[in-house]
Amino acid sequence: MADASIAPTPLLKDELDIVIPTIRNLDFLEMWRPFFQPYHLIIVQDGDPTKTISVPDGFDYELYNRNDINRILGPRASCISFKDSACRCFGYMVSKKKYIYTIDDDCFVASDPSGKKINALEQHIKNLLCPSTPLFFNTLYDPYREGADFVRGYPFSLREGVPTAVSHGLWLNIPDYDAPTQLVKPLERNTRYVDAVLTIPKGTLFPMCGMNLAFDRDLIGPAMYFGLMGDGQPIGRYDDMWAGWCVKVICDHLGLGVKTGLPYIYHSKASNPFVNLRKEYKGIFWQEEIIPFFQNASLPKEATTVQKCYIELAKQVKDKLSKVDPYFDKLADAMVTWIEAWDELNPPTKGSVANGKA
Amino acid sequence: MADASIAPTPLLKDELDIVIPTIRNLDFLEMWRPFFQPYHLIIVQDGDPTKTISVPDGFDYELYNRNDINRILGPRASCISFKDSACRCFGYMVSKKKYIYTIDDDCFVASDPSGKKINALEQHIKNLLCPSTPLFFNTLYDPYREGADFVRGYPFSLREGVPTAVSHGLWLNIPDYDAPTQLVKPLERNTRYVDAVLTIPKGTLFPMCGMNLAFDRDLIGPAMYFGLMGDGQPIGRYDDMWAGWCVKVICDHLGLGVKTGLPYIYHSKASNPFVNLRKEYKGIFWQEEIIPFFQNASLPKEATTVQKCYIELAKQVKDKLSKVDPYFDKLADAMVTWIEAWDELNPPTKGSVANGKA
Repeated sequence: MADASIAPTPLLKDELDIVIPTIRNLDFLEMWRPFFQPYHLIIVQDGDPTKTISVPDGFDYELYNRNDINRILGPRASCISFKDSACRCFGYMVSKKKYIYTIDDDCFVASDPSGKKINALEQHIKNLLCPSTPLFFNTLYDPYREGADFVRGYPFSLREGVPTAVSHGLWLNIPDYDAPTQLVKPLERNTRYVDAVLTIPKGTLFPMCGMNLAFDRDLIGPAMYFGLMGDGQPIGRYDDMWAGWCVKVICDHLGLGVKTGLPYIYHSKASNPFVNLRKEYKGIFWQEEIIPFFQNASLPKEATTVQKCYIELAKQVKDKLSKVDPYFDKLADAMVTWIEAWDELNPPTKGSVANGKA
Repeated sequence: MADASIAPTPLLKDELDIVIPTIRNLDFLEMWRPFFQPYHLIIVQDGDPTKTISVPDGFDYELYNRNDINRILGPRASCISFKDSACRCFGYMVSKKKYIYTIDDDCFVASDPSGKKINALEQHIKNLLCPSTPLFFNTLYDPYREGADFVRGYPFSLREGVPTAVSHGLWLNIPDYDAPTQLVKPLERNTRYVDAVLTIPKGTLFPMCGMNLAFDRDLIGPAMYFGLMGDGQPIGRYDDMWAGWCVKVICDHLGLGVKTGLPYIYHSKASNPFVNLRKEYKGIFWQEEIIPFFQNASLPKEATTVQKCYIELAKQVKDKLSKVDPYFDKLADAMVTWIEAWDELNPPTKGSVANGKA
């Protein structure tokens, strides 16, 4: 199976959309041109919809602003955040492709230790097309990679792995720290290039960052909801975390894999820690209760599709987290609205088993 | 807490023994002299006890052959394997130190990508002295390392970590493959230096290799039993695996951490895959039942010491694995004998809480 990584990586040109949330002109795309130009972009414009966002010439894209979101989703547009990059998940919903790559507009092309520019998207595609191994840890990391394999003592029955739903990439330069850590270590930069991809084991939660993230929309798309953040909400900067916790619980339940590690992008700009502290403040308390909730969450056998799993999780959020704060009651309702909107825009195809109305 | 990794690493000269199982002269120590000479060595001579093993000048060591093991343990010597490197665990038992490092005599000093010789022992000591984080995955790997920290979304209540019981190091050059993989990929060499140390999450098993391994004897020593292998036994090359599965279940139960990754050693010599296949043959079948057994093993609240946990595991092995093969009945008895021998050689000190007779 390791041969898979030797074969040239398919570009998946017609099967992958790149989703970019933004409030500014997309000059950052110039640096990505050699890697992104063959793909279709879905740009989700946040904030003032009357503002014009300029996109460098030669890119194939569609752009949605708040007016578009309201028009397309009607009253269900309430589940899409405003004035927060959580709005990007609208792009996941309107895509018709099998794979999504999402990247922040302050992320640039990184170099590997040899100085070579890293084609982040190609590595994500490799990660997604190759199985995951969540049931037992392999000490040489990704066993399917060229030059690696399963080590002695790895059960042979588990060596086929499971389908990979998520590829979580990392960041050189500005690390993805919370406000308190940013305040304490304002000058810390991530300079360590760790040459590994690994599967997050089953039963283990992780902090999923939306800066440099790819996923298989067919396998896990409906769980990639980035929650209610920003304008009118008591919290921000927990959009990707929320999605990551839900996604991991559902992947574990459905036997899907989540990988983290390569590829790196270069994260250029540290956000303001004082602004971040205001956004994160409640989350810092709430995550102490949210994480045990997700660690103990269990889904019933009947939840055989992502949609069914997600609706069940929404119920459990309402039951168990509403006592933490009324916000979670609202969030649980939005989770249901999200699935309704998803199913409306993505009606089940004939013979499809992966839909919530089956 | 990240500052811990900046401070010079204590040598622990008087608190660490190096345990080496061997059947040959220990010329390999010459290359390790700059790193190992300050430490005390415990050499466990396997095979013919009348053979003289030569140790390079200048090393401080004690050496035990089979006659010594029989004399010291009496009838309980039956729990120590013969003609298999599993005999090394006798060295763990006779040590009086807090930390153990064990290494195979075909392992040499590796170089990092900059060409610098790697002081494997120093890295193991760093790993052991610094906490583990088994309860939640940190995407930047070891959060206590210089230049790293906990990322956004990592619960603050978990940032103290838990004490580290085991540091599992890796191998460049000859990877630790089983016989079938060796046969299929005779020329594969591990050349990828992955610059990371990570905690194996709670609830996840891993294949622990005894080639380059350090542990805290006070925290986990009595569980580091390498089983019955070699002469008179139906199996070999599962000694470290067995220990690893038992150790991980007990560490998870007691709230201790297991790390893997750095440091690398250079593994020089591929063992004969045909010989290995004969030794591993039954293990390849058995591991398919052993691993689910350990994945589902649960220890009672009353098991508050390593010894109590281990005796309980021995009971469960007898109950649940004896039906796989009568060998496991014998192994379960040997596990109990091992604990009896351990406690005899390591009588509980006054005020000690970590003993099985408390």
